[in-house]
Amino acid sequence: MKILGIDPGIGITGYGLIETDGEKIELLTSGSIQTDKNLPVSKRLLEIYKDIKELCSKLSPDSAGIEQLFFFKNQKTIIPVAEARGVILTALEEMGIKTGEYTPLTVKQTITGHGRATKEEVREMVKRFVEINKNTKLDDTVDAIAIAICHSRNIGNLSD
Amino acid sequence: MKILGIDPGIGITGYGLIETDGEKIELLTSGSIQTDKNLPVSKRLLEIYKDIKELCSKLSPDSAGIEQLFFFKNQKTIIPVAEARGVILTALEEMGIKTGEYTPLTVKQTITGHGRATKEEVREMVKRFVEINKNTKLDDTVDAIAIAICHSRNIGNLSD
Repeated sequence: MKILGIDPGIGITGYGLIETDGEKIELLTSGSIQTDKNLPVSKRLLEIYKDIKELCSKLSPDSAGIEQLFFFKNQKTIIPVAEARGVILTALEEMGIKTGEYTPLTVKQTITGHGRATKEEVREMVKRFVEINKNTKLDDTVDAIAIAICHSRNIGNLSD
Repeated sequence: MKILGIDPGIGITGYGLIETDGEKIELLTSGSIQTDKNLPVSKRLLEIYKDIKELCSKLSPDSAGIEQLFFFKNQKTIIPVAEARGVILTALEEMGIKTGEYTPLTVKQTITGHGRATKEEVREMVKRFVEINKNTKLDDTVDAIAIAICHSRNIGNLSD
């Protein structure tokens, strides 16, 4: 089963595609969709929408996992991230890909076993699950792989 | 010139289409896109995306105005509204419709002359600009018409 993990953002949307038989996990590919901050938001969102659909056509994931947002005080970047996330959910739905949504807390718990893990601990654990190319320096990409692994562990809970 | 105003929301997205020669304003049509709260968010977003594209095909607006969101403390509905807004911006961009974005403050100032107007004052003023069908009871629809009028007054400022 091929699972696509997505870490949404207006500037950088990380993605990682893993393959798993329920036990072993292999990283097939990973990368990011990056948009030019000098473009209007609507053009950046359309680019993300098209790129997600193209990724799905190319990679044919069986299912996808995406970060779920929730409201914090003073979380000023929440609006553009939510706009990008809305567009990504729409593209996945249009491509007929069932998607699980996970809070950062759930991702941390699933990957490291405890919800108070630091970002660095999560990333270290991801590297124990899968072999990450040395060129994968982008944190957003590693986070997307973490979401894919989290989804592979929770996929039994997916509703229609 | 035909201008579409949009008040975004995950449950109800209001819209209003006005025609203006720069002075006189006529309301051509208005209504709302409503999605079923029992459906998953991704299905509701895809419905909004498709309906906005269909509206644009049917109504052929020359330009559109949409509410701009900004961050408040304790504004817990901001995430789903932003997700819907991202999808609407994407649909408008894909249909090649230039879009202006207006904060509630700018809409109030443009419609009533002062930024501290209540929602009721804005709605009363909208009814002086255009004749609203008695069946238009939905506040979101009237707000969308207000955004369309606001955009018609500011359209000279639209950038590419």
